[in-house]
Amino acid sequence: MRFAVLAALLGLALHPRPAAAQGPPDWAIALHGGAGTIARDMPAARAEGYRTSLGRSLDIGRRILERGGTSLEAVTAVVRSMEDDSLFNAGKGAVYTHEGTHELDAAIMDGATLGCGAVAGLRTIRNPILLARLVMEKSPHVLMMGAGAEAFGKSVGVETVDPKYFDTQRRREEWRKALEEDKTGTVGCVALDRHGNLAAATSTGGLTDKRFGRVGDVPVIGAGTFADNRSCAVSCTGKGEEFIRRTVARDVAALVEYKELPLREAAALVVHGKLRPRDGGLVAVSRRGDIALVFNSSGMYRAAADARGLRLVAIWDE
Amino acid sequence: MRFAVLAALLGLALHPRPAAAQGPPDWAIALHGGAGTIARDMPAARAEGYRTSLGRSLDIGRRILERGGTSLEAVTAVVRSMEDDSLFNAGKGAVYTHEGTHELDAAIMDGATLGCGAVAGLRTIRNPILLARLVMEKSPHVLMMGAGAEAFGKSVGVETVDPKYFDTQRRREEWRKALEEDKTGTVGCVALDRHGNLAAATSTGGLTDKRFGRVGDVPVIGAGTFADNRSCAVSCTGKGEEFIRRTVARDVAALVEYKELPLREAAALVVHGKLRPRDGGLVAVSRRGDIALVFNSSGMYRAAADARGLRLVAIWDE
Repeated sequence: MRFAVLAALLGLALHPRPAAAQGPPDWAIALHGGAGTIARDMPAARAEGYRTSLGRSLDIGRRILERGGTSLEAVTAVVRSMEDDSLFNAGKGAVYTHEGTHELDAAIMDGATLGCGAVAGLRTIRNPILLARLVMEKSPHVLMMGAGAEAFGKSVGVETVDPKYFDTQRRREEWRKALEEDKTGTVGCVALDRHGNLAAATSTGGLTDKRFGRVGDVPVIGAGTFADNRSCAVSCTGKGEEFIRRTVARDVAALVEYKELPLREAAALVVHGKLRPRDGGLVAVSRRGDIALVFNSSGMYRAAADARGLRLVAIWDE
Repeated sequence: MRFAVLAALLGLALHPRPAAAQGPPDWAIALHGGAGTIARDMPAARAEGYRTSLGRSLDIGRRILERGGTSLEAVTAVVRSMEDDSLFNAGKGAVYTHEGTHELDAAIMDGATLGCGAVAGLRTIRNPILLARLVMEKSPHVLMMGAGAEAFGKSVGVETVDPKYFDTQRRREEWRKALEEDKTGTVGCVALDRHGNLAAATSTGGLTDKRFGRVGDVPVIGAGTFADNRSCAVSCTGKGEEFIRRTVARDVAALVEYKELPLREAAALVVHGKLRPRDGGLVAVSRRGDIALVFNSSGMYRAAADARGLRLVAIWDE
């Protein structure tokens, strides 16, 4: 029955692949800057600002992949650039917790080795994605949290900042007003490189006004972030709790690996058939270079490119 | 090829089901008290102590299920009893961190609703599994960490203890000597109740001498803990990082759900075909009441029972 529903839902999935494509692309990349209630009547200049930022981050990844760089290098650089951009709820633009602080989470995964690194509850690390990568590469662990994660960061020389670095006028106002919009932003990137390897990376400032050391799906491998060369790389954004309980990123990969569903069918089945309406969305790239950009909220900041000339930047269903 | 390997490996899986069984049992339960290097020449009295503890916890769950109690009630009570038993690395018997403190993690999941709760890095909560359950039932979140999780615990009235409660002579000696044995213990329980609902619960004191706020697979839904009425309930124990990168609990469930493998085949494929030798093991129960108790280490403290009269308590491959 789930598959009958799927057939009806597939029309909603985005199909960015050009019709004239021949053979799989030798690299592909997709990124998101959060999904949620994104007002269609946003001022044109603001929407243009988002598009420019998304395009700039996309091009950082595209250039790395074009010159034969690794997918791991590409997703790290893209997410790092979005963490440094105050438009997105990650790094610099992180939202406020209930206590008026910032607690950042990030994760990265290498589809070739299943190596992964994740960090939760950071307060002084400028680029959480760089610390996640160091956890993967310089520690025997995969998940570190809070002050312990920051102590590890210092021991391996990652850049730290005064917590004031994350104070931004816009996020402070959102927090004061408990604005619904952008409450659950995230940034993420997935890539396939010319060596045939997949990688995924995700970073977030979490949920506006969050309490009690709440951790969302981002640092939970298999929920917000997953990559496996046998199937695909996935980065999610939306209501984290729903993505954890449904192991969304792993579920898309499992449907590709075990049910042999095409990537876009798998992604649409999970986002439209399993998640609740308005929960969010995801970007994914398969080992064959297929790209899926799927969401069930009013919009998702997103961009994608591949070796066959695809270049897409979008916010709503457009 | 993976399935060719599987055929050879299946001989290693444990088959606790009595040969004369007819029809699926209407309840089933399995638990573990950790997998790892368990010396075969352990003093007989010590082994007997483990067997007695395992049997006692098993009977707590068995009685709940027999009288029509829920799987959620059974796994909570079983894990709570093992947390209170200093033999196991969870609750009272938690191992020491590098700093000489204790940091406990736990998770619980309801297969009927996909409701889940998880906590990481607790220092003053007597029974982490009870707090995980309160996160599931009394908060909109699924994962809380550190001091924030403890503040939530206080707000909902969970029992707290002085951190000294977790000081035990045996764990202190292990920590001082950096003993290899029991470095990675965990307790967990899975159950199917007479209403057809599955549940899983896991709790741990973590890794002896752990640093940097390291978090293992226990509170990572899909890694150490997973339950879904569509497939099975799984609780894992072993080298947490390997269970996270392979989303082990979710992978067993995905093989049952999408590949339609029998539970024991799915569990054996993941433990013997995907994990590395000596990584650990898992207990699982399917929605049909099948039980899998699979490990690739020298032993796993474990027990199982079902409505058809199965009652098993074991440590090694015996």
